[in-house]
Amino acid sequence: MTYQVPVEEIRFVFKQLADLHGVLGLPAHDGLDEATVEAVLQENARFVESVVAPLNHLGDTQPAYWENGEVRTPPGFDEAFRLFGQGGWQGLQHDPQWGGQGLPRLLSAAASENLHAANMAFGLCPMLTDGVIEALSLAGSAEQCEIYIPPLLEGRWTGTMNLTEPQAGSDLSLVTTRAVPQNEGSYRLYGQKIFITYGEHNLSENIVHLVLARLPGAPQGVKGISLFIVPKFLVTATGAPGKRNDVWCASVEHKLGIHGSPTAVLLFGSGKGEVGEGAIGYLVGEENRGLEYMFIMMNAARFGVGVQGVGLSERALQFASSYARERVQSQPPGRTSGPATIDQHPDVQRMLLTMRALTEGARATALYGAALADKAHHHPDDAEKLRCKALYEFLVPVIKGFSTEMAVEVTSLGVQVFGGMGYIEETGAAQFYRDARILPIYEGTTAIQANDFVGRKIVRNDGQVALSLVKAMRETVVQLRSRADTTSHDADVALCISERLETAIAAYEQALDYVLKQAARDPRAVFMGSVPLLMLAGVVHAGWQMGRSALACMLAAQDGRATDFERRKLTTALFYATNLLPRARAYADAITAGHLTAEYAAAVWRSPSGK
Amino acid sequence: MTYQVPVEEIRFVFKQLADLHGVLGLPAHDGLDEATVEAVLQENARFVESVVAPLNHLGDTQPAYWENGEVRTPPGFDEAFRLFGQGGWQGLQHDPQWGGQGLPRLLSAAASENLHAANMAFGLCPMLTDGVIEALSLAGSAEQCEIYIPPLLEGRWTGTMNLTEPQAGSDLSLVTTRAVPQNEGSYRLYGQKIFITYGEHNLSENIVHLVLARLPGAPQGVKGISLFIVPKFLVTATGAPGKRNDVWCASVEHKLGIHGSPTAVLLFGSGKGEVGEGAIGYLVGEENRGLEYMFIMMNAARFGVGVQGVGLSERALQFASSYARERVQSQPPGRTSGPATIDQHPDVQRMLLTMRALTEGARATALYGAALADKAHHHPDDAEKLRCKALYEFLVPVIKGFSTEMAVEVTSLGVQVFGGMGYIEETGAAQFYRDARILPIYEGTTAIQANDFVGRKIVRNDGQVALSLVKAMRETVVQLRSRADTTSHDADVALCISERLETAIAAYEQALDYVLKQAARDPRAVFMGSVPLLMLAGVVHAGWQMGRSALACMLAAQDGRATDFERRKLTTALFYATNLLPRARAYADAITAGHLTAEYAAAVWRSPSGK
Repeated sequence: MTYQVPVEEIRFVFKQLADLHGVLGLPAHDGLDEATVEAVLQENARFVESVVAPLNHLGDTQPAYWENGEVRTPPGFDEAFRLFGQGGWQGLQHDPQWGGQGLPRLLSAAASENLHAANMAFGLCPMLTDGVIEALSLAGSAEQCEIYIPPLLEGRWTGTMNLTEPQAGSDLSLVTTRAVPQNEGSYRLYGQKIFITYGEHNLSENIVHLVLARLPGAPQGVKGISLFIVPKFLVTATGAPGKRNDVWCASVEHKLGIHGSPTAVLLFGSGKGEVGEGAIGYLVGEENRGLEYMFIMMNAARFGVGVQGVGLSERALQFASSYARERVQSQPPGRTSGPATIDQHPDVQRMLLTMRALTEGARATALYGAALADKAHHHPDDAEKLRCKALYEFLVPVIKGFSTEMAVEVTSLGVQVFGGMGYIEETGAAQFYRDARILPIYEGTTAIQANDFVGRKIVRNDGQVALSLVKAMRETVVQLRSRADTTSHDADVALCISERLETAIAAYEQALDYVLKQAARDPRAVFMGSVPLLMLAGVVHAGWQMGRSALACMLAAQDGRATDFERRKLTTALFYATNLLPRARAYADAITAGHLTAEYAAAVWRSPSGK
Repeated sequence: MTYQVPVEEIRFVFKQLADLHGVLGLPAHDGLDEATVEAVLQENARFVESVVAPLNHLGDTQPAYWENGEVRTPPGFDEAFRLFGQGGWQGLQHDPQWGGQGLPRLLSAAASENLHAANMAFGLCPMLTDGVIEALSLAGSAEQCEIYIPPLLEGRWTGTMNLTEPQAGSDLSLVTTRAVPQNEGSYRLYGQKIFITYGEHNLSENIVHLVLARLPGAPQGVKGISLFIVPKFLVTATGAPGKRNDVWCASVEHKLGIHGSPTAVLLFGSGKGEVGEGAIGYLVGEENRGLEYMFIMMNAARFGVGVQGVGLSERALQFASSYARERVQSQPPGRTSGPATIDQHPDVQRMLLTMRALTEGARATALYGAALADKAHHHPDDAEKLRCKALYEFLVPVIKGFSTEMAVEVTSLGVQVFGGMGYIEETGAAQFYRDARILPIYEGTTAIQANDFVGRKIVRNDGQVALSLVKAMRETVVQLRSRADTTSHDADVALCISERLETAIAAYEQALDYVLKQAARDPRAVFMGSVPLLMLAGVVHAGWQMGRSALACMLAAQDGRATDFERRKLTTALFYATNLLPRARAYADAITAGHLTAEYAAAVWRSPSGK
C-alpha cells in the first residue's frame, strides 16, 4: 500500500485549530490566500507520494554506503533530490530575499511532515539544510548569506550541522575540535566529528558544513565554542565549487534505522585535499558565540524532529490500517458472522485508535506551534509577537519530546497490528519501528528537552507561560461542558471529554505547582520528574487540541456539515480522552513523589555497590 | 561488558517471595535442599555466562542462514548446544522417568531466564524442545515417549511446534495442512507451515516436529485439528535417525531480531525425501484433539515467553547500567562538581530505576507463578493443588503479557540511556530492542493473552481467582501500613508504598467489577479494554511483589541484616510504587469507558470510509 498525505486532516487542523486565517492575515503573507495554501498542499502531496515515498523501503534495504571516502545514497535518492530542488521545496519557508518563497511555517511544517512520512531517511537531508540556511540567515554575514544560501535553497548544495564528538554528545562543553586563524581571515580546522547526518553523499555539488570548534585561548566550556562554515569544496569567485577542502568522511555508521541516510564520521585536517593540511573554515558571527547561534536555530531543528515523529506515525498508522482492513482472522467477540477482517476486532481497533489519536494529537500540537512561530516572526503588534514567541518556545520541547516518544509507541503498535508478519523485515512495519527510535535521541534527547522545559521554559518565568496555556485549555473545557448540557445526541461525548480533560489539566497544574515550589529547594527531585513532566505536558496539550477538534466536529454536525471525516475525528477525540488523557494523572503522581524517590535513589547511587 | 546472572536477586525472590521452602517441602522434591538449589543456580550462572552469553552479539551479526535446504546456525551455537545437552540443562524440570532431573519449575524458570538473558536466539531451541517434551509427556503414547523424549532430553535431538500457516496465525481454525492415513498406522502430511522456530538447523542429529493438521473428513474449525509427530529423520528400530522424511525447509525469514534463531518455512510432502511423497507422521493422542493438546502445553510455552521478557530486560538493564557508570557528560542538576558519569544524572537514574523496577517486578511475578506451578503439580492436598493450579493459570497470561510488553519498554529505555551510541548497531543496545519486539507477538499476541485472561480466567469463574489474589494483596497493604505507623526511619517509605499499592488495587478491583458486569451485556466494550486490563493486572501484581519485597527489606534492616542489596531493593520498590503503580489508575480509567469508546468506534468502523 502506498502512502497518502492526509490532506483533509491537515486542512482541518489548519483551519479549525491552528488559525490559518490569522496566519494569512499577517502582513508578511499579504497576497497569500487559502486557495494558494491548498494548491501548495496538493502539489506537495503529489510530489512526496509519487517521487519520495516509493524510495522508502528501498533506502532501508539498500543503505547509503561508504567507498573510498565517498558515500553513495540509495538508488533513486539523487534523482528525487534533484526534483525536490527543482520543485522549490527547499525554499518553502525561507526568506524571499535569498530566493525562498516565504510561505508560512504552518504550511512548511505540514509539507515537512509529509516529506518525512514519505521517507524520513531522505527527508533528513533537506531538514539539515534548512538548519544551515536558518543559522546563516541569523548569524552569517551578508556576504556569507549571498554565497551560500541561494545554492542551498535551489537544492544544488546541501548543509550539515557538526556538533557531536566522541566525548561530546549531550555535553557540548567538551568539544575539542580546534580552529586556527590564518592570515587571510580564514581558519584551519582540525578534529573529528561524529554522527554527521548527510555528512557526505552524492546528492549535491557541494556540502556546506557548519562546525563547532574552539579558537586558540578560548575559554573552557560552552563559552569558548565558535561556529564555522567549512565547505566541502571551497567556493570560487563565481560561486562555483572549487578546490577540495580538507574535510573527509572516514566512515558511515551502521545504524538501527534510517539506513538511507548516511551518518558520517568526518575528519577535519588530515591533509588529503587540495588546500594543504587543515580544513579551511570561515567564522560565522562573533568568536565564542557558536553555541548561542546553534541554540537560536535549535528551536527550529527540534520542532522539525517533532514533525518527523508525526510523519512517521502517520505512515505507520496508514500501513497498519491498510493491513487490518485485509487480514481475515477469527470471529470478533460479540459477533456471530464468522471470521472477519481484523479491523473488526476490538483490540485491533484499540491499537489503531491509539495510533490515530496520538498522531492526530501530536500533529495538532505541532501545527498549533507552527502558527505561533509565524506570528512570533511576523505579527505587527509587538506585545502579541512576544507572547507568541514565548508560547512557541514553550511548546518546542513539548512537541519534540512528546511527538518523538509517541512515534516510538505508535510504530511499535504498528508492528503489533501485523502480528508475526510485523516481525518480518520484508513486510515493512519493522522499518518504521527502527527508524522511529532515533527520534527521541537526536537534536537533544528527551531528557535534554525536559531539562530545557523545566529550567528555561517553566521555572525561569515562574510558570507564567505554562499557566496561560492552562487558562486557554480551561476555556475549551467550559465550551465542551456547555455542549454536554444540551440534549444533542453527542452530549455524552462532550461530557466525557470535558471531564477527562479537566482531570488531566488539574493533574498538570498540580505537577507544575510542585515543580515551581521544589525547583530551588530540591533540584534533583524536580529533575527526577522532568521527563514525566514533559510527557504530561504533551499528553495534556495534545488532549486539549483533540478537545478543540471534538468541538469543531460537533459544531459541524449541528450545522449538518459533518462528513465521515468529522464522525471519525470525534471518535478519535473521544478515544484520546478516555484512553490517553488518563496518563496525565499517572505522570503527575510520579512527579510529585520526586523528593522521596530522589532521596532514596541518591542514597543508592552513593553506595559503592549500588550499581 | 559481560552478562552476570543476578544470583543474589534470584535467591531473594526464591526465599522471600516465591516460597522456596514450601516448594522444597513437596513430596516430589523430597531430598532436595536449599544447598542443592544454590549449587544448580551457581553452575547455571557459570554455564550461561561463559558459554552462551559470549555468542549473543555474534548471533545477531552472523545470522542463521539457509543454503540448499539446510540451515547453518551462527558460529559457536553448535558447540554451545552440545555443552548445553551434556550439562543436563534440557532435562532440568522434566520427569526423571524419561531421564529428566525433576527439579522444581521455580528453579528451571530461573535457569531459563538466565539462558534467555545470555542469548535469547540460542535459548529458543531448548525452549521449543521443552514444549515438545511437555506435549509428548501429556498426550503421547508410552512408546512415543520412549522413542522421542530421551534423545530430546539429552540434547541429541531438538523439537519444534508447527502451528502457523500463512492464512492461519492467531486463528488456528483456518489450518489446512492435510494428514492422510496410511495402511501401517502412520500418516502422510501435506502442507506448508511458516514461522517455525528452529524448524531446520545443524545443532542436532534429528528434529522432532509436532504438527497440527486435518484428517480427511475432519470437522471444520478448531475441532477438526489433530496433532502429529513428524521426525526429520524417521527413527530406526534401534532409536537412531534413519531415512530422511519428506519435510523440507524452503527458506528462513529475514527478521527484525533474534537473528541467531532460524525461523523456517517448512514444506510437508514435496516428494524429495527417502520416503516417497508425503511427510510421514504419527498421530499424538486422539484424532481431532490436537488443539486441545497444544493448549495444555500452551501455559508452559506462554510462561516461558514471559520469562524470556524478564531475561532480556535484565540483560538490557545490566548493559545500560554499565555504560552509565562510565560515560561522563555534563554536571548533574543540583551539583557543583563538574561533569559526572551519567548515572549521577537524575533522568538517567529514572530510566535505570524504571528498567530495574519493571524487570524485578516482572521476575518476582513470574517466579511466584512458577512456585504455584510446582504446587499445582505436586501438592499432596488436592484442594490446595487445585487452588494453586487456578492461580497459576490465572497468572500465565499476566506473566506473558506484562513481561513481554515490559521488555519492549525496558529495551527501548536501554537504547535511550546510550543516547546516539544506542542507535549504532555495534554498540549492542539496539539488538535487545529488536530482539524484544517479537515477545508480545509469538506464542499468542498480547491481545490473545488478554482475551484468554478476560474470558477464561476472569469471567468464567466470576472473578473468584482474581479477587482471591486481591485479598492477598490487601494483606500486604496492611503489613506495610503497620510499619508506616512505627517510628523507624523507613516509615515514610512504607507509608508511600502502602498508599500507592492500595490505590492501584482499588483501580484494579473497579476494572474487574466493570468487566464482570459488562461481559455478557456488552462484550465489545469489555474487549476494547482487555489489553489494558491485562496490563493493569500485570502492573498491580508486580507492584504487589515489589511491596512484599519492600517488607522483606525493611525487616532485614530492622534485624540489622540489611546489605546494599536490600537498600537498593527498597529503593526500587519505592520507585515502582511512585512511578509505575500510578499507571494502574490510567488503565482502569480507559477500561471503564469501554462502552462509550466501543459504541463510537463501531459506528466509525461500520461507515464505508471510516478506515
